[in-house]
Amino acid sequence: MKFSPLVQELINSLKCLPGVGAKSAQRMAFHLLERNRIGGAKLAGTLKVAMENIGHCSQCRNFTEDDSCEICQSAKRLINQQLCIVESPGDVIAIEQTGEFQGRYFILMGHLSPLDGIGPDDLGLDILEKQLATNQFKEIILATNPTVEGEATAHFIAELAKKYQVVISRIAHGVPVGGELEYVDGNTLSHALSGRKSYSF
Amino acid sequence: MKFSPLVQELINSLKCLPGVGAKSAQRMAFHLLERNRIGGAKLAGTLKVAMENIGHCSQCRNFTEDDSCEICQSAKRLINQQLCIVESPGDVIAIEQTGEFQGRYFILMGHLSPLDGIGPDDLGLDILEKQLATNQFKEIILATNPTVEGEATAHFIAELAKKYQVVISRIAHGVPVGGELEYVDGNTLSHALSGRKSYSF
Ligand SMILES: [Zn+2]
Ligand SMILES: [Zn+2]
Repeated sequence: MKFSPLVQELINSLKCLPGVGAKSAQRMAFHLLERNRIGGAKLAGTLKVAMENIGHCSQCRNFTEDDSCEICQSAKRLINQQLCIVESPGDVIAIEQTGEFQGRYFILMGHLSPLDGIGPDDLGLDILEKQLATNQFKEIILATNPTVEGEATAHFIAELAKKYQVVISRIAHGVPVGGELEYVDGNTLSHALSGRKSYSF
Repeated sequence: MKFSPLVQELINSLKCLPGVGAKSAQRMAFHLLERNRIGGAKLAGTLKVAMENIGHCSQCRNFTEDDSCEICQSAKRLINQQLCIVESPGDVIAIEQTGEFQGRYFILMGHLSPLDGIGPDDLGLDILEKQLATNQFKEIILATNPTVEGEATAHFIAELAKKYQVVISRIAHGVPVGGELEYVDGNTLSHALSGRKSYSF
């Protein structure tokens, strides 16, 4: 004996969400069916439209349903000629919330991870190089996570960016080592930004 | 600065899932967008069909896309004339997996909870009475949860079922098999003691 085919299919589909196993999926399915069909139907519609229409900004790689994201569309964000390189879209939100950074971003959508087969191409470093060649940045700030992979990724990009004659800086170790940028409080993040150091070769 | 409107809408929609707050919703949205668009699209389709087509079995109230569920459609399940009353569809699965019960079920889809405004009508007790009047059960087994609400609900149904001349039983409470006595709460232990059985040699 199992659930009815459609109930079972709903439970199975919910397991595509990260951190959702069989038991959680079951609880979610029952909750939606019993208490929130309107929310479930709305989620279905939004998911469909989102999966079909959200792409990457052609300049910074952030998620957007337009060709360029809001930040890359703003000329103001080019005035101070700074480019901040982060691992994920959540990091952009976290840094924006500090109000300390007025430049542009580049989102790697991950970090170098040879064991998982994630190399430079997967992080869009070709697009990054095009940005560096085109936009005459004065400084690039490496704001990858202070993890082993984040540090390795920052180092790799620092080497790659050398030839563009920009100041290359890494956010300061105000960020707890081993932590994830996205979950750091705004104050710590402000200190990390203002205390950034230039790479010396 | 926020996410793009559609990304933000996706994150908000995911918060309709139980136990999913802003941070989890964000992580889910990024995961689907970055790593599993096919899974996300499939979930969208299944959710839509499920929210529109899954109803309740007209006899036992379990979730089903048909008028009657598989168990209620099976004449075999009426042979021993037993009806097991549970709180949720998950309980049916758990009991079915024991292989110990061959009768029919009735699913309350909750328990009596006056503070939340959940009364007898919300548990489909009118449908239950129709079942009791029609199907000539010999025994009804009250398998609601061993919580305050579950006990109160079981008691209420026992009173209501009296007039149908059936044996009314309650599942045994006691120390879980494989559990350690030391870590069992006092209330359970009291039940385990008072419900003790003589060894027969
Ligand atoms: Zn952009
Ligand atoms: Zn049924």
